[in-house]
Amino acid sequence: MDREMAPKQGDEGAPDAWLVFEPDVREGLRDLRAGEEVIVLTWLDRADRDVLVVHPRGDATRPETGVFSTRSPDRPNPIGLHRVKIVSIDGTRVRVQNLEALDATPIIDVKPVLDQTTER
Amino acid sequence: MDREMAPKQGDEGAPDAWLVFEPDVREGLRDLRAGEEVIVLTWLDRADRDVLVVHPRGDATRPETGVFSTRSPDRPNPIGLHRVKIVSIDGTRVRVQNLEALDATPIIDVKPVLDQTTER
Repeated sequence: MDREMAPKQGDEGAPDAWLVFEPDVREGLRDLRAGEEVIVLTWLDRADRDVLVVHPRGDATRPETGVFSTRSPDRPNPIGLHRVKIVSIDGTRVRVQNLEALDATPIIDVKPVLDQTTER
Repeated sequence: MDREMAPKQGDEGAPDAWLVFEPDVREGLRDLRAGEEVIVLTWLDRADRDVLVVHPRGDATRPETGVFSTRSPDRPNPIGLHRVKIVSIDGTRVRVQNLEALDATPIIDVKPVLDQTTER
């Protein structure tokens, strides 16, 4: 993904970002629409995969917690799970709000938003 | 994961299942508790990774839809996203309700449940 300089917006303050897909998956994107919320899965390629316990949010005053009870990027299989809103779509580039991830993090999947009836 | 014969329960009717973790990630599990809901990520190893459009829910009367707008297991990176409730924990085995997945599907991650404030 590519990060753009943009006014902060959204309740978490993350700037907009472009999700850049490979041309060969274009057909899979064809029913995404601006305004929709989706779940983006990423591979957090700069994570430390040997970590099993962390201080939540990196706060050393908080007790160490097993990573499977946290959202730490450092974990054995560092998959990021992000709920974002689609702002616009340009071919295989999808602009989204509220994505907190480092530039160039690989995107591995996009799914409809979880909710109480569809999330399992 | 292992599937057990069990009375159907839960609003989707999926039986209970055991998530079986490798011993070397045990420490990461230490703060999971019975009664909690968690997100389980799986690798859907029997999926067809060449699929980009599907009839939703396999219903040929529904129009073909790009896979990134569906929960189809057939998709380029077939990651399953499951919200489940922990029933009990026995070492590195975690018994859960409401998991719809095939036996022996590899587990790749466990995360706290998404909600409106923590899901991004």
